[in-house]
Amino acid sequence: MVSVTPERLEEDIDSAVHLHVETILRAYLAERRADLPEQAQTFATAVDTLSDFALRGGKRIRPTFAWWGWRAAGGAGTGRRADAVLTAVSALELIQTCALVHDDLMDASELRRGRPTVHVRFTDAHRAGGWLGEPERFGMAAAILLGDLALAWADDMFTGAPLSDGMRGAAREPWLAMRAEMFAGQYLDVLAQAEGDESEERALGVARLKTAAYTVERPLHLGVALAGADADTTAAVRSFGTDIGVAFQLRDDLLGVYGDTEVTGKPAGDDLREGKRTLLVSLGLGYADQAGRHADADLLRRALGDQDLTQETIERVRDLLVEVGAVDELERRIEKLTVSAMAALDTSGLAEPGRTRLADLAVAATRRDR
Amino acid sequence: MVSVTPERLEEDIDSAVHLHVETILRAYLAERRADLPEQAQTFATAVDTLSDFALRGGKRIRPTFAWWGWRAAGGAGTGRRADAVLTAVSALELIQTCALVHDDLMDASELRRGRPTVHVRFTDAHRAGGWLGEPERFGMAAAILLGDLALAWADDMFTGAPLSDGMRGAAREPWLAMRAEMFAGQYLDVLAQAEGDESEERALGVARLKTAAYTVERPLHLGVALAGADADTTAAVRSFGTDIGVAFQLRDDLLGVYGDTEVTGKPAGDDLREGKRTLLVSLGLGYADQAGRHADADLLRRALGDQDLTQETIERVRDLLVEVGAVDELERRIEKLTVSAMAALDTSGLAEPGRTRLADLAVAATRRDR
Repeated sequence: MVSVTPERLEEDIDSAVHLHVETILRAYLAERRADLPEQAQTFATAVDTLSDFALRGGKRIRPTFAWWGWRAAGGAGTGRRADAVLTAVSALELIQTCALVHDDLMDASELRRGRPTVHVRFTDAHRAGGWLGEPERFGMAAAILLGDLALAWADDMFTGAPLSDGMRGAAREPWLAMRAEMFAGQYLDVLAQAEGDESEERALGVARLKTAAYTVERPLHLGVALAGADADTTAAVRSFGTDIGVAFQLRDDLLGVYGDTEVTGKPAGDDLREGKRTLLVSLGLGYADQAGRHADADLLRRALGDQDLTQETIERVRDLLVEVGAVDELERRIEKLTVSAMAALDTSGLAEPGRTRLADLAVAATRRDR
Repeated sequence: MVSVTPERLEEDIDSAVHLHVETILRAYLAERRADLPEQAQTFATAVDTLSDFALRGGKRIRPTFAWWGWRAAGGAGTGRRADAVLTAVSALELIQTCALVHDDLMDASELRRGRPTVHVRFTDAHRAGGWLGEPERFGMAAAILLGDLALAWADDMFTGAPLSDGMRGAAREPWLAMRAEMFAGQYLDVLAQAEGDESEERALGVARLKTAAYTVERPLHLGVALAGADADTTAAVRSFGTDIGVAFQLRDDLLGVYGDTEVTGKPAGDDLREGKRTLLVSLGLGYADQAGRHADADLLRRALGDQDLTQETIERVRDLLVEVGAVDELERRIEKLTVSAMAALDTSGLAEPGRTRLADLAVAATRRDR
């Protein structure tokens, strides 16, 4: 059960981390499905929906950061230890599967990567079957249980990777912290929306926990810990990860308002409609009020969480956020965070090609258009 | 972080397993709360609600079965290994915390052990604060995230217990199977309610996975595996656990319809109102139809899932299930399962006092009045 190994791929791991991650995930999910007891075959069909969701796409960004953390801190690119590390870091994708399935349910999102979300698929199945009770309640139950299963399997996959005792011990801190920080970040995000919190502090707190810690810093921390990095290297890499992670979220804030639907796969102005309290929104409100543009600030406030937001209002909000200077300030901060991240990377004494690949990932994460 | 040890209690573990489990849980939850990052203090307050829920009661039945499995298979009652095992099996309570928090949400249950459920507490907080958005949606999000956290912490607690490599390896199969089977059982239960499945086969399938495997068989399996039991002993103990677990569920079926509200802490006829497809209901429908009592069968069918079920209808259903012989048949099956369970125990070559305590637990689980 422990011996998940990638199928032989043409290329080595370094040249196609995300493909190797997918191969490992596919094998692991098939294996765990086969382990389900005889009586649970109906559940196995539901699990296929989960597997399909986990395997259908995504940039595998967390395992990729973790892998390059491992490599940059001196971990081998091939061999038994490399395979074990690849399995361990692939488990991050199952945490992310849980996060997305549950997040889509919490946000009542209907689409993800252009296809129906998990709760919607089960709601639809209930409706199509003409079953008893409310379709939405059935969809909710299925999404909760399948998300839970993904989370449990993430741990099983991680603990099943054939790591040495020393590696396992070193990985424990980032593995524990990453999951707790992700749930904390999601809760603070939901709470900020509910409380209508406009503070920059809260917006940055959510960005630090939900994106920086969970998506970049802790995966990197995990990778370098597995490689046995010393305290200085670990601190430098984590500092790089925090800065890049926050910058990544700020880029995401901009895409959530200005992103091209064709590219992001989400409706225009989706963050506004969901009422997300991003730093962009927080700065926009603050700057508008400071400039005496109270009517504009109120327009933005009313747009937040408005399910019936029109294209016209989205355009007005877009213009407004540019005019008051919030967009420029976000770009300045992304630039500043990227510079300080790169400085941390330079002092970290990391090995090549890992160091360069981390720098490339940082640029891709903060300059991306989707 | 790994060194969770129980406070010194007056009594040894054997004399008060559930109190030792609670002491360990309390210490673990406090420690993990303290580990949360500075920015997550608002989340820490939400975690207090989760901890309160986990610590406020419950019979700690899963850790208790696991402990006595360990003892019966020759595990020590005191010392470092015993402490490590107690920590490992206490983690079962955090899986159960996740299961209850999510189950209450899926069932829209308002009360648990006479107090508001987790999603209701957060829904109420949202309403009291006059926050933005729908209170129920906020309650749902908080319950999903806190249940997820409990599940992640269950794994962290289990993997953090200072077990030997051999113990850890032996524990892997039951630990993995238990969680997957629990989610499978819950899903089949929800699906059976939706499909209005009346078959005995489905009702028994749910009982086997959701109760027998998750509550008795796998915890026992875990306990004996930690003690290094051989294949014959393991098979005998698992057979005992499956029989007692199914009997436990059949007793629960009866309590769900005939239980005293004062004792069960749930409204009268709660299983009927929720539309649970139990074996009692399946047999009741089958026997009524066989006896040509189609109007009675229809009465029972209409009662299932009826949110406005009257006390009068509950009484009629109670009488009906007795008259058609479903209640007697359930009692016969409980008796038969108990007999075969005890026979498995007798052939298992288990050590005292474990063997006797398992027999006592079996009787308590199948003859209980709550």
